[in-house]
Amino acid sequence: MVPKIDWNNVGFDIKRTDYMYMMKCTNDHEFRQGQIKPYANIELDPAAGVLNYGQGLLEGMKAYRREDGKIVLFRPDQNALRLKVGAERMCMPCPSLLEYNSTCECPTLIPPAGKGSLYLRPLILGTGPILGLTQAPEYTFLIYTTPVGNFLKEGVNSYFNLYIEEEYDRASRGGTGGIKSITNYGPALRPLMKARGNGFSEVLYLDSVSRKYVEEVSSCNIFVVKDNVISTPPTNGTVLPGVTRKSIIEIARDHGYQVEERLIEVKELLEADEAFCTGTAVVVVPVSSITYQDKRVEFQKDIDSVSKKLLATYVAIINGHTEDEKGWISVIN
Amino acid sequence: MVPKIDWNNVGFDIKRTDYMYMMKCTNDHEFRQGQIKPYANIELDPAAGVLNYGQGLLEGMKAYRREDGKIVLFRPDQNALRLKVGAERMCMPCPSLLEYNSTCECPTLIPPAGKGSLYLRPLILGTGPILGLTQAPEYTFLIYTTPVGNFLKEGVNSYFNLYIEEEYDRASRGGTGGIKSITNYGPALRPLMKARGNGFSEVLYLDSVSRKYVEEVSSCNIFVVKDNVISTPPTNGTVLPGVTRKSIIEIARDHGYQVEERLIEVKELLEADEAFCTGTAVVVVPVSSITYQDKRVEFQKDIDSVSKKLLATYVAIINGHTEDEKGWISVIN
Repeated sequence: MVPKIDWNNVGFDIKRTDYMYMMKCTNDHEFRQGQIKPYANIELDPAAGVLNYGQGLLEGMKAYRREDGKIVLFRPDQNALRLKVGAERMCMPCPSLLEYNSTCECPTLIPPAGKGSLYLRPLILGTGPILGLTQAPEYTFLIYTTPVGNFLKEGVNSYFNLYIEEEYDRASRGGTGGIKSITNYGPALRPLMKARGNGFSEVLYLDSVSRKYVEEVSSCNIFVVKDNVISTPPTNGTVLPGVTRKSIIEIARDHGYQVEERLIEVKELLEADEAFCTGTAVVVVPVSSITYQDKRVEFQKDIDSVSKKLLATYVAIINGHTEDEKGWISVIN
Repeated sequence: MVPKIDWNNVGFDIKRTDYMYMMKCTNDHEFRQGQIKPYANIELDPAAGVLNYGQGLLEGMKAYRREDGKIVLFRPDQNALRLKVGAERMCMPCPSLLEYNSTCECPTLIPPAGKGSLYLRPLILGTGPILGLTQAPEYTFLIYTTPVGNFLKEGVNSYFNLYIEEEYDRASRGGTGGIKSITNYGPALRPLMKARGNGFSEVLYLDSVSRKYVEEVSSCNIFVVKDNVISTPPTNGTVLPGVTRKSIIEIARDHGYQVEERLIEVKELLEADEAFCTGTAVVVVPVSSITYQDKRVEFQKDIDSVSKKLLATYVAIINGHTEDEKGWISVIN
């Protein structure tokens, strides 16, 4: 039932695992009777809030197997906190931190050390039926998992060629860009398909008011390096407060870099020494080109880049080769 | 199994009917084998596009029973066209107009003439599983139905007390405000609950850039009347092109009114003679007050209003008391 996996060739797509975790919550806003169940389709009323009005939140985390066999998670408390903020914005109940953490002990299919990770996808969904726009009367908290390879492979996928989008927005100031609402992603498909169709890897969005400042890639944060100063857009509502983003900022400061969270104009990005993206799926990925209007700027590859240095420290913390001084690592077995 | 219904006291909530319509579509983008099935939960992979990335569209229509027993739909072609535009924006396949129309012949539980209508809720959902952000590999087109009462009842629900929202946005220029994406609604729950908690019926949103122009109520369009001129915001991407909106504009012009689709500043609305909202659920509902910042403006009630006159014509076309010169009525049995 669960396929045999060639760990040297695992990509970033869905491979069913044995189990998923599910718990429900009705009007009293208390999740209860969570249980690990065989992975299976879930049943939803066609009038469920998530299907009709997009009342849903997602998270993304990775579990890694270390060489000594220990299974570790990276800062799951940060995902739990972000989920809580998001649930409040989307008028949904949220499991407690304790409930959340207890669900992360997924026993199956974590790739061998160095070969990838187990991607965990927590969801809170408005599963109760409604007709008029209002809160759903029932919610489901669910975690499914799938083994994924290391995102960075040699060759085409090891760099991002970004296209700066001027027609579509990702988020507006009073919207949901600062939380992991499922509603941020469906609308991003059209610009993403357009960019991919034109040979780009990803879309870089600008602020929706002036279309002058860099905000975020479809599902990762962006960093700019100029004269050894690292800058990234602030997370003031339109930019997702990425856990990798936050950690990379700390790692960079530990390495002695000056890191600024501030508005970044497109032209600054185009004149940068280096740019890179961070996210749970991609971890840290360097940008090899930026295309804005009809101008394409190429960044130097295969240099001793800042992003490589920061990624190396990040990976060393996860695999235990560098001491976890900040208490970022959660050992789950 | 289907409850006995007191047709004099039907509200706008979910009442399960016997049947629903469903058809599926895979990568070839052809919907096929649509069938009427008993109303039931649908099964979804936890990794379905709609649950993780909000890839979904909705529609809303009403079927009415006339005094002579005929069942009629109001301009279903308009909903089908809007669905097609929305599907393109959300990177989803869409049933043809013919397929769409053939699905509207729902046999059950249409209220007696004058007592309400059967609300039809078509959905296109990305039901196939994905992990990274991309188009779902399978789609489901589904229509469920529920009998609803006449929205306008005497008393509290017969007028809207609107709150003008300045913290949250409904749509940005490059977003999905102009289509019926499910992603437009979940983010609107927080402002709606806040407004309702403060005694308002609904939220009126401003444009997300200048926060100066009136755009739309959570799920209906707004009209302003001043010196017998009717104005409504243009549908240029951030405002939903409502079928009732479009029809009321035509009816108003037939009544000899000048109707302008143009940007409307908040202060114009506050100084209007009359304001009203239109939508499939609410049809035409007069506004009794607008609250902006700390100012509350009351409109005169129980006057011989423009909205009453337009609603009367709209209702007469539906129940067959006025000839359907425009071919808006589709008789389905």
